[in-house]
Amino acid sequence: MSKFYVFLIVSVLFFSCETSKNTQKNLVVNNSEELNDAIDHAQPDDVIILKNGNWENLEINFKANGTENHPITIKAETPGGVIISGVSQLKFGGNYLVVDGLHFKGGYAKGNVVDFKLDDEHIGNHCTLTNSVIEDFNKMERDDSDRWVQFWGRHNTLSNCYIGGKTNRGPTIRIDLKGNEHINNHHRIINNHFGPRPPKGGASGETIQLGDSYTSMAPSYTLVENNLFEECNGEVEIISSKTNFNQFKNNVFYKSEGSLVTRHGNYCTIEGNYFIGDGVNKNIGGIRVINTGHTIINNYFCNLIGESFRSPLAVMNGIPKSPQNRYNQVTDVVVAYNSYVNCKSPWQFGVGVNTDQKDVLPASEIRSAIPIRTIVANNTVYNSKADSLIVVTHDKIEGVTFKSNAINNQGGYFNAVEGLSASNFEVKAISENIYIPTESLNVEPYVGFDFDKITEDLFGNSRASNNNIGAFVSTEAINPEILDKSKYGPSWFSQEQNTSEVQTFEVGPGEDIQKKIDEAQNGDVILLSAGSYSVLNSLEISKAITVKAKTKGETIINYNGETGTALFELHPKGFLNVDGLVLQGNNSTKAFASLKENMFTHFGLNVNNTAIRGFNFALKVYKQAFAEHITFANTSILNCENGLELSEEINDKGDYNTEYLTIKNCEFNNVKQNVIDYYRGGYDESTIGGNLIVENSVFINSGGKEKNGILINHRGIVNVTLIDNTFKSNPVKLVALLWGAKNNSAVNNTIINSGSIITEQNLKLTLMY
Amino acid sequence: MSKFYVFLIVSVLFFSCETSKNTQKNLVVNNSEELNDAIDHAQPDDVIILKNGNWENLEINFKANGTENHPITIKAETPGGVIISGVSQLKFGGNYLVVDGLHFKGGYAKGNVVDFKLDDEHIGNHCTLTNSVIEDFNKMERDDSDRWVQFWGRHNTLSNCYIGGKTNRGPTIRIDLKGNEHINNHHRIINNHFGPRPPKGGASGETIQLGDSYTSMAPSYTLVENNLFEECNGEVEIISSKTNFNQFKNNVFYKSEGSLVTRHGNYCTIEGNYFIGDGVNKNIGGIRVINTGHTIINNYFCNLIGESFRSPLAVMNGIPKSPQNRYNQVTDVVVAYNSYVNCKSPWQFGVGVNTDQKDVLPASEIRSAIPIRTIVANNTVYNSKADSLIVVTHDKIEGVTFKSNAINNQGGYFNAVEGLSASNFEVKAISENIYIPTESLNVEPYVGFDFDKITEDLFGNSRASNNNIGAFVSTEAINPEILDKSKYGPSWFSQEQNTSEVQTFEVGPGEDIQKKIDEAQNGDVILLSAGSYSVLNSLEISKAITVKAKTKGETIINYNGETGTALFELHPKGFLNVDGLVLQGNNSTKAFASLKENMFTHFGLNVNNTAIRGFNFALKVYKQAFAEHITFANTSILNCENGLELSEEINDKGDYNTEYLTIKNCEFNNVKQNVIDYYRGGYDESTIGGNLIVENSVFINSGGKEKNGILINHRGIVNVTLIDNTFKSNPVKLVALLWGAKNNSAVNNTIINSGSIITEQNLKLTLMY
Repeated sequence: MSKFYVFLIVSVLFFSCETSKNTQKNLVVNNSEELNDAIDHAQPDDVIILKNGNWENLEINFKANGTENHPITIKAETPGGVIISGVSQLKFGGNYLVVDGLHFKGGYAKGNVVDFKLDDEHIGNHCTLTNSVIEDFNKMERDDSDRWVQFWGRHNTLSNCYIGGKTNRGPTIRIDLKGNEHINNHHRIINNHFGPRPPKGGASGETIQLGDSYTSMAPSYTLVENNLFEECNGEVEIISSKTNFNQFKNNVFYKSEGSLVTRHGNYCTIEGNYFIGDGVNKNIGGIRVINTGHTIINNYFCNLIGESFRSPLAVMNGIPKSPQNRYNQVTDVVVAYNSYVNCKSPWQFGVGVNTDQKDVLPASEIRSAIPIRTIVANNTVYNSKADSLIVVTHDKIEGVTFKSNAINNQGGYFNAVEGLSASNFEVKAISENIYIPTESLNVEPYVGFDFDKITEDLFGNSRASNNNIGAFVSTEAINPEILDKSKYGPSWFSQEQNTSEVQTFEVGPGEDIQKKIDEAQNGDVILLSAGSYSVLNSLEISKAITVKAKTKGETIINYNGETGTALFELHPKGFLNVDGLVLQGNNSTKAFASLKENMFTHFGLNVNNTAIRGFNFALKVYKQAFAEHITFANTSILNCENGLELSEEINDKGDYNTEYLTIKNCEFNNVKQNVIDYYRGGYDESTIGGNLIVENSVFINSGGKEKNGILINHRGIVNVTLIDNTFKSNPVKLVALLWGAKNNSAVNNTIINSGSIITEQNLKLTLMY
Repeated sequence: MSKFYVFLIVSVLFFSCETSKNTQKNLVVNNSEELNDAIDHAQPDDVIILKNGNWENLEINFKANGTENHPITIKAETPGGVIISGVSQLKFGGNYLVVDGLHFKGGYAKGNVVDFKLDDEHIGNHCTLTNSVIEDFNKMERDDSDRWVQFWGRHNTLSNCYIGGKTNRGPTIRIDLKGNEHINNHHRIINNHFGPRPPKGGASGETIQLGDSYTSMAPSYTLVENNLFEECNGEVEIISSKTNFNQFKNNVFYKSEGSLVTRHGNYCTIEGNYFIGDGVNKNIGGIRVINTGHTIINNYFCNLIGESFRSPLAVMNGIPKSPQNRYNQVTDVVVAYNSYVNCKSPWQFGVGVNTDQKDVLPASEIRSAIPIRTIVANNTVYNSKADSLIVVTHDKIEGVTFKSNAINNQGGYFNAVEGLSASNFEVKAISENIYIPTESLNVEPYVGFDFDKITEDLFGNSRASNNNIGAFVSTEAINPEILDKSKYGPSWFSQEQNTSEVQTFEVGPGEDIQKKIDEAQNGDVILLSAGSYSVLNSLEISKAITVKAKTKGETIINYNGETGTALFELHPKGFLNVDGLVLQGNNSTKAFASLKENMFTHFGLNVNNTAIRGFNFALKVYKQAFAEHITFANTSILNCENGLELSEEINDKGDYNTEYLTIKNCEFNNVKQNVIDYYRGGYDESTIGGNLIVENSVFINSGGKEKNGILINHRGIVNVTLIDNTFKSNPVKLVALLWGAKNNSAVNNTIINSGSIITEQNLKLTLMY
């Protein structure tokens, strides 16, 4: 048959398709009723157009059925011109449906924001949400869980969306596989921009979760490709893959505090991704491997210095005969043709081994099963500064075979393993973070089982001839522009904020401070003249603002609000800097406090050069409130009933109130209880949370009313540093009880008549699962 | 393109394939050296022919490489003409290799009999063993484990073979998936005849095991199709599927004491199989379901009366968050279009629930997770006699949905569930065991998710029009001849034995009994005239034989062998009937005993009308010896130091020495210890083993030396019946300690001055795994 005939027939087929159903209808709708009516009557090819404007409290129940070549579409009049706010949601319940160009902001959803299921009888299949934005669409309480995009059914797509700012509990995106209707789903999550997801302060802050341990046997075949993950810091897992046969390809993980984790499920492909750190932040991870049969090839890792769980390649130990929701042994994994540039101790094996905790944990928690039948081959490591520890062996590595890996360690010593050889290959930058070799490495690639199927490199160049180890076969390449944001998310949207110039509002004694705060914009400064201010109502802080004394120590605020209220009341998005003030309470009020409820997103607090006197609480953070940073520096807390209290997260689910609590150069004098009380409950080795730094501070005559007899309470906080402090005449039994198994340390402290600091190696905590 | 052109092109393709490589070479080899040499030089298309005869101690290491259309073959000169005996084995190490027409018998293998792997570097792929027999190729000791066919690699086939008689430990066939080279294997086990596999007396007696719990996450895609499983009684699992995506199609399970079990792994298809029982034997099971996503359709079940684990459809409870080697919850299973004829209580759910054992078992053993998202639809149940209990609910069944199921229960009461309705459809026999409906049932089939893919019925008839519930859409069908053995196994082989006429050998006092035994054939009778016989050496029994007194009680055998020896020494295949004798020992010898070692296959013992006096042991069965039946009837055991001892299986792996120990109308008088001692150790709920019946017997003045103070010891035996016995003046604390949780009962016994019978609900046993 000649090509001409083929063309003719194909043309006829196309022609007949296009003409047989050329009934496309564009219908503009102005309100919810019109939209519902349009959906009710929608036919294949119809396009329902939402009039531009703010659609408040909109529930789109998209129950309709298009066909493969004739979908039904709901779209914004102009992309981004439709704002969905209030209590709103979108549900797909049918086949071949498309939603295009919406902007969810200024609200939250009753259930999930986007659901590919209307109910059990109406499941989305072949549906697409594209070219849309979901921004800060948080529920009112952190513990009120939801997903912003919840996948069900099969063959659904999330493409070219920007999704950022989730702070409440629950993965941003989740694929659900409970039921045969949802397996073998071939969902696609492509070309999206996942913007910042701030640390949640506890578990369940993943950006994408694919299944759960109860469906970890299901075949999923979800594709996550060409997405940008930017500062996705929600928790230790950016992507938590919990099903089988998923593919993670050509994504960029940029300064995201977490890892791509094959948490449950097997046979995933992780190929051609970029993991970019900053060489400073140890929370930025790479790939953490659990379970069987994963293929990790052609990935690029740069400037990652995370350790253990967060190392560039963290291959975990499993639990023998593991319970379904814990850690299966790593078996049959291939790690090949990856490139590591300036990563510290990039390869870590036996991560999570905890045989030393046999006495405090049940046998079903002991990760003693080392990786087996695992191949690490044809990878390159380049360090511009020598790293002596390339392979970290938390346990035996006899089940791991290394073949044809090469390292340029600048001639420096490193712990050699067979199959990793020194090489003097050089690299050159083709962009800020991407370094490719300047010449072909003189290493014959190892050919393992199925390696013949790795036919291309990270840039898509063929490996057929002139193959090379590492992610790059060619020494020539142009900048792949992996951070060019026009490649991800909607074309019409940029999350970058216009930064306006900082304004300063001067206030004098007798003037209304709140009024000025209300007038100020994000980033502005309220400058208080010297003198004494009497404040009767809480100052409400719901933006980023600085309240500062014109002259340090000469501005005195006397707070005489109602009992239990706070001078500075921190609301969601309230990021407060206080500098140089003297704050005087009446013993029944608080200096600083979060709201008791509806803390739907983060706050922050930075107190400097300030004196806090005569309050019931210097700081009280309520349950479900979260700040990434709370800092007190060069500040004194005197004659207060309570000091800094962040201890209401007692559900023992791993939650806590701040990521970093920092006390530097402070004095606590006559603070009776809760001097510092910062709590995280619940044992979960993969939630690596909480940071307390107490440095160069003085504690005098404090803690007398502490029932447990401990001055500084930080039970369950993983990272604790007590350094260069002085503890004098505090009527307590202990200054602190350190958790030996975690990163708790006390260095160079002076303790006079104040009990002692002791270490308990294995702290007993409630198991979380 | 016309059909003619298609034909032309296909013909040309075939022609070119066939001619391009027409270099086939037939090479006859006469011995091992010639064979090895031929293998070393084999080229695609070569056929190596083993000269007919007995090849003893032959190791075939088939290391060669054929191609898809040009395999390399090793075959018998004439099929079945080559006997492989002694210590022999066959290993495939290469691609496209075929072995055809061999007969393994009269020997055993060092490792496995057939291995689809030579070593880790030489794995069989696209290899076939066909038209061959493996018969009684047991290792010398029961605990010496092997597999007769061990699969590795991919795309290997076992076809048209007869495989029977395995008694030693280890599945007859196993698929191994440890390593990526062995997954997605698409092995085929087709058209085979799996002949009798006698009960093993403990675990690890499967006929086919696919993977293990450690590879239960691996995709296997093994096909088991059109095989006959005849009396595959090795253990409770005939087929133990432990991986994913396996298919079991159109097999016949005929009077096989066990079930097809989805033990680990998920998404298996069980389609179009026949499960045929005899209406009497409760050990004959059906399908036992564990895990996720199985599809059970178009199967036919007849005359099955097994209960619980062995019921026709046994859907188990799982363990919440189960350990990897235990029981995952049943989810997402479809049971549709099956037909059940004269099966008792065919549908059982929550099988294995053991929440009442919370106090004696660890939490990780408690099966409390009920089946969920499970559909039972479009099935038919026909009972010629009403059965009041169709659905047995061992636990809640709220997770199971019944739709469009119909039952003809002859109008009798049954426990109704929604979705199972009475119907008066009739059936007719199209063969001895196959009954199809005489008319279309008036029930609209339910259409669940993916039900549109069930396009045919059990006989391959289309369901497109005139669909019907049950396995049969048509009311007309011819006998499918499922037991026509020419459809399975090699065409040249029949396992049926020629039965010769029974001969009787008369022996008188002074004559050599052993000589006659040696002369006798299987089934013959040695008839002993009245009188007194003096025997100095053990009588060796290694065939089926009856030793009988001409007149009951008038033949007296005085045994004066060496201390510790037995009058009757039971060898492998020694099936002894003793009738009417008086056996007199010298207090240091045994009346009956197995060999101490090399009991490579079963023995049997039936003692009737006999007096056993003055022996050290009436019966001693040594470790690893196994009899399906041991029976003492109308027999007295007097003045013996020990009675019946079967208690050496103390490895606590679930093993025991006999399936049925039966004592009827016997007298035990002055038997000092081990009066009856029958032991099984190791907790394993799925090994349902051991049967003790003690009926209408008298025990007097016995058990005085029992250290544990129990007269009848049967610890760990699952089925125990003590009925109508008299226990008198036995100096013991207990007559028996019954296991309440299992099938132990004592009825109508008379106990006089002999302690008591007590019941312990939950016996403490060592966990096996």
